Amino acid sequence: MASSEGNKLWGGRFVGNTDPIMEKFNASIAYDQRMWEADVKGSKAYVKALQKAGLVTQNEMEQILTGLDKVFDEWSKGEFKIKPGDEDIHTANERRLKEFIGDPAGKLHTGRSRNDQVATDTRLWLRDAINTLKELALQLISTMVERAAVEIEILCPGYTHMQRAQPIRWSHWILRCILGEFYLNYILLEVSMDATGQRDFVAEFLFWASMCLTHLSKMAEDLILYSTKEFSFITLTDAYSTGSSLMPQKKNADSLELIRSKAGRVFGRCAGFLMTLKGLPSTYNKDLQEDKEAMFDTYDTVHAVLQVATGVISTLKVNQPAMEGALSPDMLATDLAYHLVRKGMPFREAHSCAGKAVYIAESKNIHLSQITVEDLQTVSPLFDKDVSSVWDYNRSVEQYSAPGGTARSSVTAQIEHFRTWLQAQKQKP
Amino acid sequence: MASSEGNKLWGGRFVGNTDPIMEKFNASIAYDQRMWEADVKGSKAYVKALQKAGLVTQNEMEQILTGLDKVFDEWSKGEFKIKPGDEDIHTANERRLKEFIGDPAGKLHTGRSRNDQVATDTRLWLRDAINTLKELALQLISTMVERAAVEIEILCPGYTHMQRAQPIRWSHWILRCILGEFYLNYILLEVSMDATGQRDFVAEFLFWASMCLTHLSKMAEDLILYSTKEFSFITLTDAYSTGSSLMPQKKNADSLELIRSKAGRVFGRCAGFLMTLKGLPSTYNKDLQEDKEAMFDTYDTVHAVLQVATGVISTLKVNQPAMEGALSPDMLATDLAYHLVRKGMPFREAHSCAGKAVYIAESKNIHLSQITVEDLQTVSPLFDKDVSSVWDYNRSVEQYSAPGGTARSSVTAQIEHFRTWLQAQKQKP
Amino acid sequence: MASSEGNKLWGGRFVGNTDPIMEKFNASIAYDQRMWEADVKGSKAYVKALQKAGLVTQNEMEQILTGLDKVFDEWSKGEFKIKPGDEDIHTANERRLKEFIGDPAGKLHTGRSRNDQVATDTRLWLRDAINTLKELALQLISTMVERAAVEIEILCPGYTHMQRAQPIRWSHWILRCILGEFYLNYILLEVSMDATGQRDFVAEFLFWASMCLTHLSKMAEDLILYSTKEFSFITLTDAYSTGSSLMPQKKNADSLELIRSKAGRVFGRCAGFLMTLKGLPSTYNKDLQEDKEAMFDTYDTVHAVLQVATGVISTLKVNQPAMEGALSPDMLATDLAYHLVRKGMPFREAHSCAGKAVYIAESKNIHLSQITVEDLQTVSPLFDKDVSSVWDYNRSVEQYSAPGGTARSSVTAQIEHFRTWLQAQKQKP
Amino acid sequence: MASSEGNKLWGGRFVGNTDPIMEKFNASIAYDQRMWEADVKGSKAYVKALQKAGLVTQNEMEQILTGLDKVFDEWSKGEFKIKPGDEDIHTANERRLKEFIGDPAGKLHTGRSRNDQVATDTRLWLRDAINTLKELALQLISTMVERAAVEIEILCPGYTHMQRAQPIRWSHWILRCILGEFYLNYILLEVSMDATGQRDFVAEFLFWASMCLTHLSKMAEDLILYSTKEFSFITLTDAYSTGSSLMPQKKNADSLELIRSKAGRVFGRCAGFLMTLKGLPSTYNKDLQEDKEAMFDTYDTVHAVLQVATGVISTLKVNQPAMEGALSPDMLATDLAYHLVRKGMPFREAHSCAGKAVYIAESKNIHLSQITVEDLQTVSPLFDKDVSSVWDYNRSVEQYSAPGGTARSSVTAQIEHFRTWLQAQKQKP
Repeated sequence: MASSEGNKLWGGRFVGNTDPIMEKFNASIAYDQRMWEADVKGSKAYVKALQKAGLVTQNEMEQILTGLDKVFDEWSKGEFKIKPGDEDIHTANERRLKEFIGDPAGKLHTGRSRNDQVATDTRLWLRDAINTLKELALQLISTMVERAAVEIEILCPGYTHMQRAQPIRWSHWILRCILGEFYLNYILLEVSMDATGQRDFVAEFLFWASMCLTHLSKMAEDLILYSTKEFSFITLTDAYSTGSSLMPQKKNADSLELIRSKAGRVFGRCAGFLMTLKGLPSTYNKDLQEDKEAMFDTYDTVHAVLQVATGVISTLKVNQPAMEGALSPDMLATDLAYHLVRKGMPFREAHSCAGKAVYIAESKNIHLSQITVEDLQTVSPLFDKDVSSVWDYNRSVEQYSAPGGTARSSVTAQIEHFRTWLQAQKQKP
Repeated sequence: MASSEGNKLWGGRFVGNTDPIMEKFNASIAYDQRMWEADVKGSKAYVKALQKAGLVTQNEMEQILTGLDKVFDEWSKGEFKIKPGDEDIHTANERRLKEFIGDPAGKLHTGRSRNDQVATDTRLWLRDAINTLKELALQLISTMVERAAVEIEILCPGYTHMQRAQPIRWSHWILRCILGEFYLNYILLEVSMDATGQRDFVAEFLFWASMCLTHLSKMAEDLILYSTKEFSFITLTDAYSTGSSLMPQKKNADSLELIRSKAGRVFGRCAGFLMTLKGLPSTYNKDLQEDKEAMFDTYDTVHAVLQVATGVISTLKVNQPAMEGALSPDMLATDLAYHLVRKGMPFREAHSCAGKAVYIAESKNIHLSQITVEDLQTVSPLFDKDVSSVWDYNRSVEQYSAPGGTARSSVTAQIEHFRTWLQAQKQKP
Repeated sequence: MASSEGNKLWGGRFVGNTDPIMEKFNASIAYDQRMWEADVKGSKAYVKALQKAGLVTQNEMEQILTGLDKVFDEWSKGEFKIKPGDEDIHTANERRLKEFIGDPAGKLHTGRSRNDQVATDTRLWLRDAINTLKELALQLISTMVERAAVEIEILCPGYTHMQRAQPIRWSHWILRCILGEFYLNYILLEVSMDATGQRDFVAEFLFWASMCLTHLSKMAEDLILYSTKEFSFITLTDAYSTGSSLMPQKKNADSLELIRSKAGRVFGRCAGFLMTLKGLPSTYNKDLQEDKEAMFDTYDTVHAVLQVATGVISTLKVNQPAMEGALSPDMLATDLAYHLVRKGMPFREAHSCAGKAVYIAESKNIHLSQITVEDLQTVSPLFDKDVSSVWDYNRSVEQYSAPGGTARSSVTAQIEHFRTWLQAQKQKP
Repeated sequence: MASSEGNKLWGGRFVGNTDPIMEKFNASIAYDQRMWEADVKGSKAYVKALQKAGLVTQNEMEQILTGLDKVFDEWSKGEFKIKPGDEDIHTANERRLKEFIGDPAGKLHTGRSRNDQVATDTRLWLRDAINTLKELALQLISTMVERAAVEIEILCPGYTHMQRAQPIRWSHWILRCILGEFYLNYILLEVSMDATGQRDFVAEFLFWASMCLTHLSKMAEDLILYSTKEFSFITLTDAYSTGSSLMPQKKNADSLELIRSKAGRVFGRCAGFLMTLKGLPSTYNKDLQEDKEAMFDTYDTVHAVLQVATGVISTLKVNQPAMEGALSPDMLATDLAYHLVRKGMPFREAHSCAGKAVYIAESKNIHLSQITVEDLQTVSPLFDKDVSSVWDYNRSVEQYSAPGGTARSSVTAQIEHFRTWLQAQKQKP
């Protein structure tokens, strides 16, 4: 009876044969073998618990631990051979354990359902994976902080709606980007592996990764823009760009485009997994097996993206003249309004006056800074020749010295804050 | 010049007219007026900060505060009139404030971009919204805990893969369901309104809601199943079911189907918003305006679902005879295996023996409990007449007395744990 | 008995009361009243079929038809009053019909389940909706085709990877954008309302809309880019841009940002609906009610986006000097390679030679067209002074005269092709 | 110069080295090698076009064709060796071609951008893939049709809202399921490979697959339900179910759960790809490379699901007594209403009377068919003893003889219709 079922766990009952396509469809060994280490560790912890509970003897426990160490060794050395019938990593390791130590292997399964084992292994694996991603995120943040420190003197346009808004420090742009990653790193530290729901922690990891890569897709979008001929603010090193097979002069920011593209991929995994979960009956259903490939693919993707992003950021060349050449007096129109506010005009009215000044400059096809005081006085009698003090980009950025501002002192304070935080992170266990 | 632009904020510059379709497309007042209270409160806080910074005088501040109180009153009484040109709640409130107090109203906008104001108002609104949802979640959990306490005696099949697995207490099923909501409620308390990213807190709220409703879709699926004629474990009250316009005998679990359906709706909002965010340039882009409708619709949906779920759970009728009638001796096959384990057999082998016993019962078309000791001994000589002690459902559930188990003591402990936790939540500020 | 159930369709059976929250949760009248016309028309067709089948008399049919016309009139004039208990548009219309004609109204329901009626009404509504969207899509395409015809002389850079690639006609960019909308319009015509699956046609419509808006999000992205100060290729009219409440000089392409944002919204609806469908038992489940709001919101969104896109395209101002000023000799490097190919060199080698020429120009900080023949000959002896013919943008674009190319003749042919196609569409019934 | 760049296509220009992580991130050879056959075929067609256009000589064409045949042979035999630097299948094949035939290989690239080549290869590959899936879909449909033919006598409950509604033929359920797959197969035949948008055909394929698997998830859900102990309508063969590692008596419908789960996976791919497309600038961007893995994974998934579904359907055992035992007189309440309609009562009133009869039966705890004529007459005087003719399940199903109905004649007609259609499909080229 059931001899053809070989080493399947439910061996005692089935009398039919399994469709080979079904067998492959059902098997997860092709991808879940990545969890071999978590599985061995989990089993070692479990057998110790069994011994404490009196369900295996000291001797049996020792045999099992020794056997598990042999299994571990085989995997470490790349010598573990997967056999037909090893439908998942847990079956494979248990089959091998039995080959090593015989009958006592069968005791390891006492009171442990396959589903508990899978959930435990997955948590163990993900805990390590998150630690690795955390280190890579810290590296990226650290690279950005140090770059911001070195290039604090460089001014560039700040954009909203992709339109030039006000002058900012280039370091300010970098620090603003960090906030996304910093925040997400912070969240990352908190992802609870102890979540009670069976697969909530996987879903949360997938969403965390989606948010993380969405932030990076935005940073990539900015940098792709800055690397166009029209902006020319930055140049990627050859290591992070590729040429065109048709157009010899081209140098494309492929690395950044790939970073930008991955937010979709990872969120697709999150969307797919939630759709799979929707409306499932409670407790275990085989549908949950979909968590594994989503988790692995997401991990691999974030792992690569963080490293490539670090490489791009650390090697890109900043074109300071182009950045500063992109500043123009109309970007100081808000400062012009504040100039009037300081003379007692309500902001709304001052904004309107500055708008009229912009309109005059456009009509006369001159820079905002070139309007005569007489012309300005047609807009508001509060204008006087002291208005000339407004037309200074450095003075403009230095106004914003509140926390998070673009003044040198604010930027320096933020850099120090991040350095301290990074230091603290590195000293954590 | 620009006279046709009326009370638009950027009034000083534009010379053309706005396409009415574009105006409607651009305007958010139709939905963001829900944030009127947050907007007034936010402005009151802001003007106090301006006064401290010396940017408005004490007198101006007082005028503005008095004016804002009048705006508040109009909204409270449902008397606020939205006018053409009020493109969003912020413009509307500021326009009204100016009508009340004249020029000083213009000072309220000093150093505050519309985008900052929107972000602040949204946070304030969402903070209140989350508190409301938290209360509703606690109500649902409380209802479930008390129901579990009352019906602790009722046994029913525990299912995995929608197949009868082992006997459990009905209360155990309820408590297992709570874990999803309990956990999610816990998370809910932690959603950080101080997230640095501009709209991260909205995205997180949408994902939290998706997970919450995914959990509830699973509970709903179980209950829909239990309310089929074939299961007949529960009956919904008429208040939560509807009839068929064609088939007079039908009583459909519409309430549960609606609960199940909403996970898709809410996750669609989350998916849509992340797709909108993907690849945006940093800082503000109008695309971000999509956050509002997603947030409101998600809030309304979760708000209704939690209440309907509470109503369903508190009023459904449990059919104890049907539940206990669904227990059958084959659900004790695991216990049969453990019976052998206690006699020294490794679990894997015991599992195989129990499987063979199941096969014999099926072949003879008798219950597992009806196999003779002689027949059992063909499977394993360890079987003896003491095997009869296995065939007792109450004894079976009482074995699982570890934390989280289905024994009376475990279930009681969980109920007490939840009661204490609920009490603590209610006492929080 | 059941008196409190009032005019609910299943009136004869229920004895309890409905929770008001549940009632609201269950009711769809708030949004499905949009289908009032489809519902009346569907009922008129149905009663005629009933009469043919002998299930209502000629007289009853006439009473019902007259009554339905009265219902129609009330809706047309905005005089229809929705009453408590009108849970959906079908119940509302039937209730009103009964008020008009009494008992015979009850015959209209013979052999028709509510679900059949909903499905029929939805198809009827969507058929009209699609026709409206089709007209708007044709308007947009027509605007683009005529603009392409007028501005055929203007050259600009063609971009791949957001990097300048080769010179193209501005009209060529427009025509390439049309292809997305053209194709989708084509598909739109084919959406089968006769799809057998219950809600497949809704899901398909949602996906069609997602693809349509994804195409438009890409066109919007290009135009946002082209409207930056750095590109300065186009200027939006004031009607389609807005100012900043903080920065007086700013003019933001809000219309384009809104267009870009809507792809996410609509795809979120599609994602949500598919998630709702996933794993439902076959035939009708209340979950399907989610189709309506998704469909209406999607229709409204596409309706607005198509009109705003038409407005933007028809009014934007092209800055020809900026476009042509962005052409540079290095964009002719491919032409330089073909120059060598025409002299017998394999393309791969020619590409490499042109690449080396680009490198020389960059090293010497001169334009590619300024390299001396001597320097070029160090790269390949095939270079001669006839290389000077390469440095001509007009000549470059005129090379691409194959169908779909950027030569004047190709572009003209495409314009004619689209005009003919548009003409044919307008003459369709 | 650039010697380290080896055989990269843009070899002539770059002077830096590529980051190995970036190289791996950028490379697609790991997955796009599946398109080796499409790539060779595409190149063979392309070189013939080049020869016709006079861009390669007859001799060069012949060398290239011969070389490509050698490349083809190596792949066929599994002897093709991928080398470092082969970043995609196109580069790999071209590199190998050059090794075989030397310089003329370089001509193959004339006027063909890598992006055109990728798009062409992808279309060719997908065309074949769709044909394969079409055959598998036809097999599944054929299996279902033949099963429906054989088991036409078996009656079972028809369900809506998972509640027993009216008696139907089991074959009717099967045919209703086919409609989803049939329709989708029909659509499948029409997926246009000539779509003008660059990747529209991939997005459409992903959506088609999502809809297809959503339909199958619903069929799987029904069958999982039918295979529960409570329904016991069907039993899966051992080949398509698995046991529990903990509970020896269990037999889980894993195959059906896996089928159900895959709708999420595939739709996640679709969602991810659309999110990646959103907001991209027009023409080629590296982000588009995400299409390949989504397409392959989706193909593999649908490929497996269709086969497993065919296996499940062809081998499941129907439990006729359980199905027919689940029929109960209350499912004939609609027939009771029609009984009154035939006596002249409007349907709405008749529905209400039947509802009252159901209520009486429930109150008396008897079957609907057991109510006395006297009791029925308290509901309506139209009731007479001829009401007894209503209580016959066979007579009930035979009433529905319209097209698509559950009467024997209707079901037979549908089976014949499908058979004819299948025959026609098989004879297509």
